[in-house]
Amino acid sequence: MTETAASSVPIPDAANWACPLPLRDSPNIVMGHGGGGAMTAELIDLLFLPAFGAAAAAEMGDSAVLAIGDSRIAFSTDSFVVKPMFFPGGCIGDLAVNGTVNDLAMAGATPLVLSTAFILQEGTPLSVIERIADAMGRAAEAAGVKLVTGDTKVIDNTSGGPGDVYVNTTGIGLVPDGMDIGPARARVGDAVLVSGDIGVHGVAVLSCREGLEFGTTVASDTAPLNGLVEAMIATGADIRALRDPTRGGMAASLNEIAKASGVGMHLVEADVPVPQSVKDACGLLGLDPFQVANEGKLVAIVAPGDADRVLDAMRAHPQGVGARLIGRCVSDHPTMVVAATGLGGTRVVDMPIGEQLPRIC
Amino acid sequence: MTETAASSVPIPDAANWACPLPLRDSPNIVMGHGGGGAMTAELIDLLFLPAFGAAAAAEMGDSAVLAIGDSRIAFSTDSFVVKPMFFPGGCIGDLAVNGTVNDLAMAGATPLVLSTAFILQEGTPLSVIERIADAMGRAAEAAGVKLVTGDTKVIDNTSGGPGDVYVNTTGIGLVPDGMDIGPARARVGDAVLVSGDIGVHGVAVLSCREGLEFGTTVASDTAPLNGLVEAMIATGADIRALRDPTRGGMAASLNEIAKASGVGMHLVEADVPVPQSVKDACGLLGLDPFQVANEGKLVAIVAPGDADRVLDAMRAHPQGVGARLIGRCVSDHPTMVVAATGLGGTRVVDMPIGEQLPRIC
Repeated sequence: MTETAASSVPIPDAANWACPLPLRDSPNIVMGHGGGGAMTAELIDLLFLPAFGAAAAAEMGDSAVLAIGDSRIAFSTDSFVVKPMFFPGGCIGDLAVNGTVNDLAMAGATPLVLSTAFILQEGTPLSVIERIADAMGRAAEAAGVKLVTGDTKVIDNTSGGPGDVYVNTTGIGLVPDGMDIGPARARVGDAVLVSGDIGVHGVAVLSCREGLEFGTTVASDTAPLNGLVEAMIATGADIRALRDPTRGGMAASLNEIAKASGVGMHLVEADVPVPQSVKDACGLLGLDPFQVANEGKLVAIVAPGDADRVLDAMRAHPQGVGARLIGRCVSDHPTMVVAATGLGGTRVVDMPIGEQLPRIC
Repeated sequence: MTETAASSVPIPDAANWACPLPLRDSPNIVMGHGGGGAMTAELIDLLFLPAFGAAAAAEMGDSAVLAIGDSRIAFSTDSFVVKPMFFPGGCIGDLAVNGTVNDLAMAGATPLVLSTAFILQEGTPLSVIERIADAMGRAAEAAGVKLVTGDTKVIDNTSGGPGDVYVNTTGIGLVPDGMDIGPARARVGDAVLVSGDIGVHGVAVLSCREGLEFGTTVASDTAPLNGLVEAMIATGADIRALRDPTRGGMAASLNEIAKASGVGMHLVEADVPVPQSVKDACGLLGLDPFQVANEGKLVAIVAPGDADRVLDAMRAHPQGVGARLIGRCVSDHPTMVVAATGLGGTRVVDMPIGEQLPRIC
C-alpha cells in the first residue's frame, strides 16, 4: 500500500494501534470475520459503526426499513463469494438473487427490484459468466423481481488459478402498511417454527468442495422465500420475527432474536428436522447442523395462539412442506438458546464464534 | 470448478460455445471488460442482458428511476476495486461513497441512503479497514447521506500479497417531482458544460501506482456532486443530461449522451480545462486526457439559452469553480463527438474501447 502525505484520511500508526476487537489477538482480518457469527458482529459493532460515526444509522441490520413519501421500503445488500461457484442444486447466481430476495422477505417486504454488481477476475471464461447471469435471470423471474441496474469491475488474477467471480445484489422491497416484523418482538410463550430441513446448503457446498461423498448427493436448498412469507402473513397471524438462517445457521438466527428480544428459547432437538445425510456429514466433520448455512429456509417466531394456522399455511406452500414447531420462547435463561437433547439432557445452542465453513455464500 | 449433474443451471459446452462479444477473440474476461468503454457496453448488451432475459429492465443504466407509491426514487450500484487503496487526495472509502452519491445526483435525485458491502481478503490489517470505514463515514456526512445497511465477506488470500479490499455501495435517492434529466434528452444547439479540470483522478492513482513523478503531486478530485447539481437545478434552467465522467473519462460520457440522443457534439479542445500536470502525465504515457477518469467532475447538457446562468451557478459552488462551456450539440455527424484541435484541425473523440488504466475506481 502506498502512503502519501496528501491522503485526506488520517493514518493510524499500525504498530501502536489498539485493535478494538477482543475475540482474536490478530490485528488482521481472518476468515471468521466473514462467518456471520460473533466475530462478524464484533467487527460491525466495534470497528465499522464507530468509524462510520454520525453517518451510520443506529442499526446496520440485514435490512433497513425506510420511509419514502407515504411508503415504507426495505433495503438490503449482500455480496456472494461462494466457492466453488457451481454446486449441486444451484450456483452463485441464483444464490445471489435468492439471498437478497429472502433478506427483504424477512422484513415482511414484497421484493421489487435488485441491483447486480459483478467483480470478475481476469481470465474468467465468458461462458461461466453467462451461465451465472442466466441463473440470476431465472431466479429473479421465479421470485418476481426485476434486475434494474448494475456494475462490472475486473480485477487482475494474481493467483494464476481459475477466475473468481464475486456478485453483489442489493434490493428494494415494499413494506405493507401496518407490517411490524423484527428481531426485538419475540415474547415469552411465542412459538419457534422452522420451514423445513436444516443444514442442507452448507453440506452441499462442502461436499463438492472437498470431494466428499455422504451416501446420497445433498443438493443446496437455495430458493426464494417471499411467496412462503406472503402465505404466512395472509393468515393474519401475529408474526413477531423472521430470519433466513444463512451463515451461522439456525443457531445464529435464534441467538440474534433471543438477544434482541431479551427472551430465552427452549428447543426440542428431536423436533428439528435434520436430514440423515446432513447428520452423517456433520458427524464426520465435527460440525453442528444448527450452525450450518441454509439458503431456502426460515425460522419464525409467532404468537402462542397462532402457531397452528401459520404451520398449516407453511405446509401448504412448496417451500414450507417440512415446517415444524421446534420450541418456545421462555422466561428462563434470557437471551440464551437451549435445546433438550435426545438423551434427556439439555445443551446450550451457542452463537457460532467464527466460520465453520468459509465462503459458503 | 466442480460440475455436477445436480446443478440447476444448464452447462454450456465451453469448447463449442459461441462467444457473443465481437470486440475481442478471447473467450475470457480481460481487464478491458471493466473499463467502462465499448467492451463493457458489449458485455452488458450482448451477454448480461440476454442472459438475464425477461427479468432485466429495458435499460441497465448507471442508475434506475423507479416509482414507489407517489414517489420516484433513483437506485444505483457501484463496486470499487481501486489499486492502491490509498492515493493522494483520497482512498477507496471516500471514492465508494462519492461514486454512488454522484450516480444518484446525475439523475437529478437527492441522495438519501447507502448500503455498504465489503469483501475483505484474509490478512488485511484491521487498521486499514478502520481507516477506509472512517473515510466512508466522513464522506457520507459531507454528502448528507446515511449508511443504513451492510454486509461483510472474507475471501482467502491465495496470492500471498497484502490484503485487498473491495467495497460495494448501493444508493437510493429521491427524484423531485417533474425532474426529467436523461442521456436521451440532448438537442441540437444545446450547450456542453464541464464543471472543472478533467483527468485528475486517473493521473493521481496512476502516479502513485507506478511511482511516477510529474513535477507536482496530482491529488484525486474525489468529491460529492449532489450540492453542485442542486445549485444548477435551482436556477430553473432546462438541464437535459448530466454525467460524472468516471471510467472512460469525458469521452465515454459525451459519446453515451450523443448516442442516446442521436445528436453530434462539437467541442473546442482549447476550452476544455486540462491541468498542465495531467497534460504532462498523459503525454508521457500516451493517454488521452479526455479518456482519463474523474471522480469529482460532471458534464452537463443544457438548453441553449440557459448556459450562462447555469455556468454562473456552477462557478459560485466550490465543486464548480472551474466550470466551462466546452462545446455544442450539432446536427452534423449524429452520435459522434468531434473536437476542434489547437492546430486548426478536428479530431474524433472516440468512445474508449477497453481499459486505459485498470482498477482506477
